[in-house]
Amino acid sequence: MFKRFSGAAAALDMLIDCCRPLRGTEILQTVMAEGRVLSQDVVSAVSLPAFDRAAMDGFAVQSAETQGARPNAPVFLERFLPMRTGMPVPADYDAVVMLEDVDRHGSVLEVTAQMHPYKNVSRVGEDISAGDTVLSEGHTLRPPDLALLSALGIAEVQVYEMPKVVIIPTGGKLLEIGSRALFAGEAYEINGLMARLYAEKWGASATKTGIVPDDENLVREALKVNEGADLIIIIGGTSIGEKDYAPKVLSVMGELFVHGVRLQPGKPTAIGAVADRPVVCLPGYPVAMLMDLYFFVRPALQKIGHRNDLQPTVKAKLARKIPSRPGYLSLVRVALKDGEAEPIMISGAGILSSVARADGFVIVSEEKEGLEAGEMVDVLLFE
Amino acid sequence: MFKRFSGAAAALDMLIDCCRPLRGTEILQTVMAEGRVLSQDVVSAVSLPAFDRAAMDGFAVQSAETQGARPNAPVFLERFLPMRTGMPVPADYDAVVMLEDVDRHGSVLEVTAQMHPYKNVSRVGEDISAGDTVLSEGHTLRPPDLALLSALGIAEVQVYEMPKVVIIPTGGKLLEIGSRALFAGEAYEINGLMARLYAEKWGASATKTGIVPDDENLVREALKVNEGADLIIIIGGTSIGEKDYAPKVLSVMGELFVHGVRLQPGKPTAIGAVADRPVVCLPGYPVAMLMDLYFFVRPALQKIGHRNDLQPTVKAKLARKIPSRPGYLSLVRVALKDGEAEPIMISGAGILSSVARADGFVIVSEEKEGLEAGEMVDVLLFE
Repeated sequence: MFKRFSGAAAALDMLIDCCRPLRGTEILQTVMAEGRVLSQDVVSAVSLPAFDRAAMDGFAVQSAETQGARPNAPVFLERFLPMRTGMPVPADYDAVVMLEDVDRHGSVLEVTAQMHPYKNVSRVGEDISAGDTVLSEGHTLRPPDLALLSALGIAEVQVYEMPKVVIIPTGGKLLEIGSRALFAGEAYEINGLMARLYAEKWGASATKTGIVPDDENLVREALKVNEGADLIIIIGGTSIGEKDYAPKVLSVMGELFVHGVRLQPGKPTAIGAVADRPVVCLPGYPVAMLMDLYFFVRPALQKIGHRNDLQPTVKAKLARKIPSRPGYLSLVRVALKDGEAEPIMISGAGILSSVARADGFVIVSEEKEGLEAGEMVDVLLFE
Repeated sequence: MFKRFSGAAAALDMLIDCCRPLRGTEILQTVMAEGRVLSQDVVSAVSLPAFDRAAMDGFAVQSAETQGARPNAPVFLERFLPMRTGMPVPADYDAVVMLEDVDRHGSVLEVTAQMHPYKNVSRVGEDISAGDTVLSEGHTLRPPDLALLSALGIAEVQVYEMPKVVIIPTGGKLLEIGSRALFAGEAYEINGLMARLYAEKWGASATKTGIVPDDENLVREALKVNEGADLIIIIGGTSIGEKDYAPKVLSVMGELFVHGVRLQPGKPTAIGAVADRPVVCLPGYPVAMLMDLYFFVRPALQKIGHRNDLQPTVKAKLARKIPSRPGYLSLVRVALKDGEAEPIMISGAGILSSVARADGFVIVSEEKEGLEAGEMVDVLLFE
C-alpha cells in the first residue's frame, strides 16, 4: 500500500543526503556563544602566559646559585624576590623555590633544594603561542573553550547560524494546548511542542506554525510559505488514507523519496524535498513521532548544524525478552532500574504514558527477531 | 602543610553531607517547565483517551457481525461507519476494520477479516485512567512529559526552585573579561564564567560577584553578603600561602571540613559550611577548577536540586599509558580519536589549551599507579 516503502537505514540515508550543512555565519560575543559551532579556525594573537609566570608561591631565584642545595647543605642567597602564584618572574631570575624549600632570614634566603632553570616557572607561550590555532572550524564551544578564548582577549567569535526548523502540525479536531476545554473527540496538539523542544535542544532555531486542517491546499500553502527553512517537519496525515495529504503534497511540490519505513514505531513516515530543502512527514501518534524525531530529525539537524553531539547512552542488562518484527528496525522503550533495562511492552504508538515511564530506548536490528533476557544492550537515553 | 588534608571520596562525602535538597517550590506553566524537577506527584483528572478511539483508518463495525470473515469468505455489513484514526467510535460499534480488509460497495461493506471486540480501538483510559499518578515527585521533565501533561489538560506544574549558586572570584591582578587591555602581569578572570555556565547547565540559577581582591576582610564580607545561597563557590586563594584567605575565612565564619584533597589536579581545594550552607573553595588554576567543578560541584548541585542527570560517558581504549600519583585520585584529560582515548599528558593545572583539545576525562583511582595502554576506560565527556 505504501508506494515508496523503504528500509530504515536507506530512508535515513536519503534524508541525510539532501541535508546541506549551513554556510551562513554570524558573529557572537564569546561569552554568549556556548553550544554554538565555530565557522572558522581561531588563531591567537597573543601568547599565554604572556610573560614568564610563577607557578608556585615562593621566591624567584637564579637557578645557578642554588647548585648543590639540599636540606643538610643549604645555600644562602642575597638575590631573591618573593613571588605569588601567577606573578611575572623578572628577567634576571629563572626559577621559583617553593615555600617548603626555603627559610627567609631577613635579607638572606636559605634554600634547601637545587633548582634547575625554569623550575616552577610557566614560560611565555607555554600554554599557547601567538599564531597558534587554538580551536578549529567545526568545534562546538563548551564553557572551558569560552574561558580560553576570553583569556586570550578574543571577545567575539564567528559561528554557524542555527538551523531554521519549521514545524507544521496538521489534523482535524486538534486544538492548541490549553486554548479551551476539549469537547468529545477533540485533543490538544502536543506533537508540535515535543518537536520544537527537541529541535531547540539539538541546536536549531525552531518555529511551530498554527495547526493546519486536513486540507490538501492548506498543507501545500503551509509548505510554500515556509520554503526558506533548513528543515521542515510536517506532523500528521502521513499514512495512506484519503486524507493523508502530506506525502502527496510533497510529491507534487517537490520530490517524495520515501513513503513508509520499515521502522517500528514510525512506519507511516515520509521523506522528501521541496525547493531543494529536506522535508520529513512524521506520524501523528506521539510515540511514533518521538521515535522518528530521534531516528530522523536528530541526525538531520546534526548534519545541517555541523554538529556531532553524542546521545547519552548506558549499557544495561535486559530484564526481559523483547520480541520484535523481523525485517523492521525496532526502537523499544525501556525503563532503567538497578542497572537493568525493563522493556515497556505496552504496544501502541499512541501510548504516551509509556514514554513518561521510559528512560530511553534500545535499537533492535532488522535481522533479529527480538532480544533475549539477560543480553547486554545499549540504552539511548531520552534527553 | 594542609591541616585538613583529605582523600577525594571522603572530601566529596563531607560536601554532599552538608548539601540539603531544596524544599522551596514554584508553579510554572507546563510548556515552560522543561528540565525542571517535579516537587509533587501529578495525578490525572481525566482519562486518555477520553473516549473509545479509532486506532486505524477504516470502518467501525460490530465485531460479532464479522464472525468467520476471511478473504475467500467475506461477510457483508450494512451497519458501519467510516473512521479516521483518532475519531471517537460510537457506542453501538466495537471494532474498526482497517482499509486493507474491506471493500465498500455503496451502502454495503465487504469485510474479509474477522474482528474481535475492540480490535483497532483504543479504549477509554487505555493510556491513562482518571486518578492515575502519571509522573512522580522527583521526575525531571523532558519534552514528552510536557506533551503528556498537556494532553491531559494539565496547564501548570509545581516544581522545585532552582538551586541558587553564588560564585565569588578572588585574586589580585585579575580583570573582568574584556574590561580593558591587559598590562604585564594581569589576566582576565575566566573561572567565574566557566563556573557560572556549568552551574546553569547543571540546573542552578547562578550569579557571579565582582572580583574580590586578596583581602581577608573583603573575602569575609563577600561570603557574609551571600549567605542565603544554596551553594557558594569561592575561586582562588585556596592554597597555603599567607594570602590564601578563603579557607581561613571559612574556619572563622563557619566550619572548615577539608583543606587539601588527594585529587590531581585539584589538591588546593577547601570545603566547609557557613550558616549551615555548603561552601567550596576552588583553586584559581583553570584546569584544576574545571575538574573540581565536575568532581565536587556537579554532585552537590544534583543533590540540592533533586536531580540525577547522567554525565555522558563513552567507552574507549587507551591509546597510551597514563601515569598517575599513587594515593591521589587522578582526573586525566583525554582526546577521543577513532574510538581510542589519547591522554593529554601536558601537566600543569594552568594549561587551558589542554582542555580545548580534550573531549573528556578518565578517573584513575588512588590504588593505581596509572593505567596501561590498551585498557578499556570510561571517558566522562565534558558537557
